[in-house]
Amino acid sequence: MQIDLNCDLGEAFGNYSFGGDKDILPLITSANIACGFHAGDANVMNETIQLAKRHNIGIGAHPGLPDLQGFGRRKLDMSPEEVYNIVVYQLGALNGFCQIHDVKMNHVKPHGALYQMGAKDKSIASAIAQAVYDFDKTLVFVGLANTLLISEAKKLGLKTASEVFADRRYEDDGQLVSRKEPDAVISDSDEALNQVVKMVTENKVISKNNKEITLQADTICVHGDGAHALEFVTKIREKLTKEGIDIQSL
Amino acid sequence: MQIDLNCDLGEAFGNYSFGGDKDILPLITSANIACGFHAGDANVMNETIQLAKRHNIGIGAHPGLPDLQGFGRRKLDMSPEEVYNIVVYQLGALNGFCQIHDVKMNHVKPHGALYQMGAKDKSIASAIAQAVYDFDKTLVFVGLANTLLISEAKKLGLKTASEVFADRRYEDDGQLVSRKEPDAVISDSDEALNQVVKMVTENKVISKNNKEITLQADTICVHGDGAHALEFVTKIREKLTKEGIDIQSL
Amino acid sequence: MQIDLNCDLGEAFGNYSFGGDKDILPLITSANIACGFHAGDANVMNETIQLAKRHNIGIGAHPGLPDLQGFGRRKLDMSPEEVYNIVVYQLGALNGFCQIHDVKMNHVKPHGALYQMGAKDKSIASAIAQAVYDFDKTLVFVGLANTLLISEAKKLGLKTASEVFADRRYEDDGQLVSRKEPDAVISDSDEALNQVVKMVTENKVISKNNKEITLQADTICVHGDGAHALEFVTKIREKLTKEGIDIQSL
Amino acid sequence: MQIDLNCDLGEAFGNYSFGGDKDILPLITSANIACGFHAGDANVMNETIQLAKRHNIGIGAHPGLPDLQGFGRRKLDMSPEEVYNIVVYQLGALNGFCQIHDVKMNHVKPHGALYQMGAKDKSIASAIAQAVYDFDKTLVFVGLANTLLISEAKKLGLKTASEVFADRRYEDDGQLVSRKEPDAVISDSDEALNQVVKMVTENKVISKNNKEITLQADTICVHGDGAHALEFVTKIREKLTKEGIDIQSL
Repeated sequence: MQIDLNCDLGEAFGNYSFGGDKDILPLITSANIACGFHAGDANVMNETIQLAKRHNIGIGAHPGLPDLQGFGRRKLDMSPEEVYNIVVYQLGALNGFCQIHDVKMNHVKPHGALYQMGAKDKSIASAIAQAVYDFDKTLVFVGLANTLLISEAKKLGLKTASEVFADRRYEDDGQLVSRKEPDAVISDSDEALNQVVKMVTENKVISKNNKEITLQADTICVHGDGAHALEFVTKIREKLTKEGIDIQSL
Repeated sequence: MQIDLNCDLGEAFGNYSFGGDKDILPLITSANIACGFHAGDANVMNETIQLAKRHNIGIGAHPGLPDLQGFGRRKLDMSPEEVYNIVVYQLGALNGFCQIHDVKMNHVKPHGALYQMGAKDKSIASAIAQAVYDFDKTLVFVGLANTLLISEAKKLGLKTASEVFADRRYEDDGQLVSRKEPDAVISDSDEALNQVVKMVTENKVISKNNKEITLQADTICVHGDGAHALEFVTKIREKLTKEGIDIQSL
Repeated sequence: MQIDLNCDLGEAFGNYSFGGDKDILPLITSANIACGFHAGDANVMNETIQLAKRHNIGIGAHPGLPDLQGFGRRKLDMSPEEVYNIVVYQLGALNGFCQIHDVKMNHVKPHGALYQMGAKDKSIASAIAQAVYDFDKTLVFVGLANTLLISEAKKLGLKTASEVFADRRYEDDGQLVSRKEPDAVISDSDEALNQVVKMVTENKVISKNNKEITLQADTICVHGDGAHALEFVTKIREKLTKEGIDIQSL
Repeated sequence: MQIDLNCDLGEAFGNYSFGGDKDILPLITSANIACGFHAGDANVMNETIQLAKRHNIGIGAHPGLPDLQGFGRRKLDMSPEEVYNIVVYQLGALNGFCQIHDVKMNHVKPHGALYQMGAKDKSIASAIAQAVYDFDKTLVFVGLANTLLISEAKKLGLKTASEVFADRRYEDDGQLVSRKEPDAVISDSDEALNQVVKMVTENKVISKNNKEITLQADTICVHGDGAHALEFVTKIREKLTKEGIDIQSL
């Protein structure tokens, strides 16, 4: 039994710092590295690849929408062709830094609104997956469990990793409860830890309506900003280890 | 005896068109493709790589300064480390499109102010060359003849291509006469054509002070915008062919 | 009886030219000047204000979404607060150039996707109108006839100008037929000219289903790019003049 | 006897926070607010103007070079005309937010590399000053004491405020000792406080070579980031107050 812990890294920009990359690195197994569109720049990318290499964790691209001010979180009506092209561009750019440091890019996880758009829109999901496939068909495609991101990537024959969340509640159909709803987030950390274990060991989760539903869990999304975040990731690691689950890269 | 004809391509952006890429392509042997910093975007890059592939010409990266408004022509005081990183980023980004279209990047030519900065500043020349070398040591490095761009690239063991200009006058020391001077440009096309032939066949040029000086000529820079430009490139081709010089990619 | 002819101007950027500003200027009465977000930059804005001043036409701001690559035509999910702020920013920026050339800004017309978003989303329409009102309540607010842009601006007490199109067909409810439909555009120029006259003299238009509907017509949107465009604007002017309609600024 | 304490504010951007604006505000008398080029965006500007208004301090524009990644600290070779235009643009943009909140812009202080370029290059200093003058001739022009910024602004008849630094050493000619030199910064806070008092009360400073030189001191530059910074500003205030010097806006 095994699971991956992934975290978004390299989201600083120019003079602006962001997140606690150095603190979270020892606790995770996969890094999703921003590629200069929603965050990150060439200097940050070079530094972040080196950090990830030093910690020997899985290196992934984290392509986003071209919207630095909105941190890639605002939906932008791009055509599938445009989406395809910005994904190829960003994969290539990050791979430049992989090449100079002699590391292999391992996975790709779309960021923010691009991730959300892909989860819900088949042509966008297909465009992202096709870009990844055409760029390097050995890459692992990370997407929200039970969404078009995963199914479109599978169609192409890409290896996929279904992403789950420790502290988010799920609908009966396996989708995340929207953040606009009051019960979207699980605030009790024991409840969250139990949800994680159930997802990893049984591929099941209890929905907000108390139904047991199926959910593939290959990687857990964790966050590095804030002392509380680090503490929570540490707890997840302890819990998983205690349950005999290997924490390892995709 | 052989020479390459190179031209900057893919310098459109979003809704803005630029240059006459389709018209110049059949006349050149190497394309320097903008990488999204001084010009170009992911859509333009994808299209331009395909155009270059279709015409079977040498594909090169044309990295520039991050200054779209200034078209990469305004000197920006970046550190050598920053320059190194933006070159790696842009090489990688363009290479993404090479990968999806299964073509090999052949050369790199810095653009505009980056080219000028590299020609005159050793630490900048060295940073650009090192980025190219670390990214892919088989790439040909194109730089202004008789400048630090060429010597720093040679130091690293990169193959270099010295770029010359048909219609620019040279100083006694092999540098270009500054555009600020009245006699910087050769307006008589026969004189320009004769200069080209002498440069290619003898690796010599007559300086503005009428001295014969040595100048390595591996590639000639031509331009694709304007009917006159196309006509001039056609004349260069005719002249070179008549003189028995092969026009072929680096 | 009078009508205004407005055109988008100042949409060049850096090294990129766009449209035929100098040719269309003598034919129009209001200029909507890009403010540096979807197009235009500080140099272009300074020059365009001077051109508009020289031709003594109404000067207006043409604020857009922060998306140069998409020319402001791709919908971006900004909050009403964000929309309010980018409109204030752009009005201020353009007004800087009005101040240095001692001209008065006369109107505001949102651009592209911002215009479309405002036409259909009440909170966006309200945010744009509020920004205009707070900035300068004497400005004329130009929006698509029969949409929320006009009604929200009126609510605040702004003077409004309903924009109509010579060569677009209308639905029975007064909305434009979507460009996705085959009959969206009127290709016969006589039909278009007759539509213009009817809209201006009677505030009526014949819908695509042959119903006569009411449509306030204060200003006609014309385009400056392309020889055909100039010819069509010239025809509109002749037709309007023949019908005794004054062509004058808002 | 009076002096102004000025600080750069509103340098956050999008998702990125920066500095401790709220903490430093009660301690200063003038705010230099970023205008969206080197830092700041429309949302930040709106918020910062309101903060400054609430604390009733002098509101100023802090225009910079169009280089967010470099935080406006990298010299960019813009022509005087380009510099003029970006200053007008940024003054206008910030003034938009002044208008909606019914406050008056009081001063302008160029940022970073633009400030440095203006201090040393007459045509750039003149372009900045002319832009300020043309935009609003009642604005106070803040520049480095003893430099072209001040002399060019004075030539046009602008009110000027010479800026001095508490913790920087001065050359015999009144220029700042370059940060590249080991003794550029005064690390002893008593020495710095004494320098401030001498500059304010006598318009004199002791140079690094121990000469007493003349230096107009109208405003002291302070910083808001870091606990130490706040503490030092507090000390400056106490010292000035003890010496009977009024701390008030320009």
